[in-house]
Amino acid sequence: MKLIIVGGVAGGASAAARARRLSEDAHIVLFERGPDVSFANCGLPYYIGGEIVERKKLLVTTPEMLRSRFRLDVRTRSSVEAIDRTAKMVRVRDLASGREYEESYDKLILAPGAAPLRPPIAAIDLPGVFTLRNLQDVDRIKEHVDSGVKQVVVVGAGFIGLELVENFVKRGIATTVVELQDQVLPPFDKEMTTPIVETLLDKNVTVLLGQSAEGFEEGADGLVVRLKSGQRLPAQLVILGVGVRPENKLAVDAGLQVGPRGGIRVNERLQTSDPDIYAVGDAIEVKDVVSGDPTQVPLAGPANRQGRIAADNVFGRPANYRGTQGTAIVGVFDRTAAMTGSSEKTLRRANRPFRKIYVHPAHHAGYYPGADSMTLKLLFDPTTGRVLGAQAVGGAGVDKRIDVLAVAIQAGMTVFDLEEMELAYAPQFGSAKDPVNMAGFVAAGLLRGEHPQLDVDTCLAAPVADQPFLLDVRTPQEFASGHIPGALNIPVDDLRSRLGKLPRNRKIAAYCQVGQRGYLATRILLQSGFSAANLGGGYKTYKLFQPSAQSRSL
Amino acid sequence: MKLIIVGGVAGGASAAARARRLSEDAHIVLFERGPDVSFANCGLPYYIGGEIVERKKLLVTTPEMLRSRFRLDVRTRSSVEAIDRTAKMVRVRDLASGREYEESYDKLILAPGAAPLRPPIAAIDLPGVFTLRNLQDVDRIKEHVDSGVKQVVVVGAGFIGLELVENFVKRGIATTVVELQDQVLPPFDKEMTTPIVETLLDKNVTVLLGQSAEGFEEGADGLVVRLKSGQRLPAQLVILGVGVRPENKLAVDAGLQVGPRGGIRVNERLQTSDPDIYAVGDAIEVKDVVSGDPTQVPLAGPANRQGRIAADNVFGRPANYRGTQGTAIVGVFDRTAAMTGSSEKTLRRANRPFRKIYVHPAHHAGYYPGADSMTLKLLFDPTTGRVLGAQAVGGAGVDKRIDVLAVAIQAGMTVFDLEEMELAYAPQFGSAKDPVNMAGFVAAGLLRGEHPQLDVDTCLAAPVADQPFLLDVRTPQEFASGHIPGALNIPVDDLRSRLGKLPRNRKIAAYCQVGQRGYLATRILLQSGFSAANLGGGYKTYKLFQPSAQSRSL
Repeated sequence: MKLIIVGGVAGGASAAARARRLSEDAHIVLFERGPDVSFANCGLPYYIGGEIVERKKLLVTTPEMLRSRFRLDVRTRSSVEAIDRTAKMVRVRDLASGREYEESYDKLILAPGAAPLRPPIAAIDLPGVFTLRNLQDVDRIKEHVDSGVKQVVVVGAGFIGLELVENFVKRGIATTVVELQDQVLPPFDKEMTTPIVETLLDKNVTVLLGQSAEGFEEGADGLVVRLKSGQRLPAQLVILGVGVRPENKLAVDAGLQVGPRGGIRVNERLQTSDPDIYAVGDAIEVKDVVSGDPTQVPLAGPANRQGRIAADNVFGRPANYRGTQGTAIVGVFDRTAAMTGSSEKTLRRANRPFRKIYVHPAHHAGYYPGADSMTLKLLFDPTTGRVLGAQAVGGAGVDKRIDVLAVAIQAGMTVFDLEEMELAYAPQFGSAKDPVNMAGFVAAGLLRGEHPQLDVDTCLAAPVADQPFLLDVRTPQEFASGHIPGALNIPVDDLRSRLGKLPRNRKIAAYCQVGQRGYLATRILLQSGFSAANLGGGYKTYKLFQPSAQSRSL
Repeated sequence: MKLIIVGGVAGGASAAARARRLSEDAHIVLFERGPDVSFANCGLPYYIGGEIVERKKLLVTTPEMLRSRFRLDVRTRSSVEAIDRTAKMVRVRDLASGREYEESYDKLILAPGAAPLRPPIAAIDLPGVFTLRNLQDVDRIKEHVDSGVKQVVVVGAGFIGLELVENFVKRGIATTVVELQDQVLPPFDKEMTTPIVETLLDKNVTVLLGQSAEGFEEGADGLVVRLKSGQRLPAQLVILGVGVRPENKLAVDAGLQVGPRGGIRVNERLQTSDPDIYAVGDAIEVKDVVSGDPTQVPLAGPANRQGRIAADNVFGRPANYRGTQGTAIVGVFDRTAAMTGSSEKTLRRANRPFRKIYVHPAHHAGYYPGADSMTLKLLFDPTTGRVLGAQAVGGAGVDKRIDVLAVAIQAGMTVFDLEEMELAYAPQFGSAKDPVNMAGFVAAGLLRGEHPQLDVDTCLAAPVADQPFLLDVRTPQEFASGHIPGALNIPVDDLRSRLGKLPRNRKIAAYCQVGQRGYLATRILLQSGFSAANLGGGYKTYKLFQPSAQSRSL
């Protein structure tokens, strides 16, 4: 067996190591265009910021190690230029010498990754304008930063964009982030990103949403970024982080099928349309676990697992890739945002019925010092209760709850299962009723009909005539420090004695700070013959939809 | 409907709040023997240590709040002395006045909790010898500590015992812990507690295992604890934390069924043998989720959920309690130990077939600063691969992995599902191959037969003639700093060229530091015609079974 693997980072390196474990005899050739194999992509922003001090830490392994330990025929700075599927040969160019040669294969695994998008912006090739993909990029950026940068513009407020923003701020650089969409972290639902924007603003980051870079110019002090709005941003460094596209040229040229967004099409065994050619990682189209639809999700975890699975299949051990659910996480200063499964907007786009709830629990018992509040949004099927997606934003403990919910989605669990989850509790780690239990209680109560809820966004977007009577059941102090316009304040503890103040001919939407007192108020009202519902997630959720200053002008 | 609830802490308070949400009309009487309702049991040790500063933080709610918000008829310092099931009456003693009276019920929920065991030890009632259950106990202990305690003896090295030890050490008190069993944290498998013992010893705690207190005496400087071994420990304060027993007297006197260990017997609806009487919390017998056998697990999370479920059933909403899986966690200084599902010893006792693996991953990407190593043990069915139990010990991130595995057990997932879990990865939160994935890879490889493994404990316990040939595949430096006696050292990178040094007529057990290089070595050996297996979890697992100083004599 002669196996050729194209691409030596996450998926390719995993496939190669697995292949050797499965076969001592196989000839395994690993071609990598760059000088490094298996480097830590996800660490690059933190090396720029200085959190990761030693460059060599970013090298997860080296070509030498792969040769000595796995007897891999590793060829770096080698670009595979073409595949001759009939002859089962690849044409390779040695980038050092320029020499081209051919290499035969029995099986081929493509792991070429995805390249940063370079949109057609005027003067995008000016010095000082960078994209970030590999160690060579990071070396160039770091050298540029170390030479003295006062202002940076990051174009694109996705995961890597915001990680870069944090690291530039930590280096004392005045930082602006420009995002075409009207929110940061586009995979998330917009309201869940409000706390992240607030954190960025707190750190004096200039956040420009719904804006795009139209061109770059040389300026008096480095560069000028011209925005579509006409604004001109001076900067000595610009990073483009506006997304990636699958490196599919090799596959397309070879006549392999690709999807509409360019991802190489594979079956469950990760076989392309040519059964002797497999493909893995950021370059492929995968199945969305929740919707079953094809999608493209460039993530390191799936790439690593796909590498294993492709190698298994190459060596005759049938293994299926189950699909990707898009579990992702990002740290932005002391805040964390994480998600898994479908977002509300993807469900809406797919016209898939869903319900949603929000809870705002502390990450561990409130009586133990250091409890940090989080917002957890849960999306679920309105009939079966199956969990479709989850998003959380907060500090410590966000990663844990999203991982727990990722497993729930993988297992096809319902909100009724979340109620029963038995998670580890001691006061420094969680609560007797964990945030995930709380989300389950609220969602299950909604589906059982015992806890009717209105979504704050749809409720307040309705024409005034259709809007419910708003009842704020918090204390007068809470009410005075901010409430939804038009609401009447009756604290929940007084509600039973003041029911006469409430309309009998109109739906009442009760709300409190996070939803708990609003739930009790709703139960009291329902049992007293009112038409009532809880405004889900309370005033805190309302505030997520009312960001005070989503973007700041210059 | 008139509902009486006996006991106002976790399960009782949850049942009462839920009952009111379900019914505005019901008369709900909550009897509590103590002066407080719903206090934070799990926080008590941290109040003694000063981590929790304000006593009022321990009061999750108050009788006044339960009255005003939930219109509960809360009667504290009221002891329910007897149940007349025929008349459906309880006899109550008002502890303040001594007055006794009767109260009728339609439905009764028992939530009396569990009381600390007071073993028959001589002079156990001497001043300075305490148990810890409620705020009154903690007030007495704290007063005693504040009056100047130099030496404390904690009898019992369970969860609460070790939490107390940590808090006494933090207050600068010389602390000894005495445990009857030959390990701390008896629900865990012994080898998993080795790092906890090492931490205790590092903090200058005297750890006496396999020892018991035989009596107490007044001494020159307070008390003397006499151990069975003859040792005499001076102390000014002794805490007994040797377990709890269900408070079942009321139930037993009323003729309700109890299990062999005293837990009140209930069905899935949490109904006792009298259909009008429910029982919840630490006083009941529950079903073990993994084994299906009856068990008793005093934990706050299950108690809270049971309270909800009992109230649901009382008000005609059928709800089942699925059982308890024993998810538990404890922090001991900077270490965390957590578990879920069955332990190896419970599986052995039940003669249930199982396999086990150990992994020793970092809690997040090794290239990002602050990665903390953990040991994760996974127990699974040898045929189906179903996850039966998990234990972890380490620092940050232990809680997350045990919660993920708790959900896997709840969902009936297998080790093959763990391989495919898509968990959140960014370098400060996890790894592209999460510790749970790693455990899945190792366990699934074992079951598929591609990664044969030997358990270090059974392997080395075998007669010498039956022991395998030990091959240490680490570097010479690692080998020199400690290895298993009798092992031959051939680094994995040299293995292919030195196969001639190895016996063909004997099983070879390869090992490295944590199991990864040992796995590759095993694959090389198997494919070269040797009989070989990996010593699961490597030298680190071996060391867990070789604690250097489990207990220290005085």
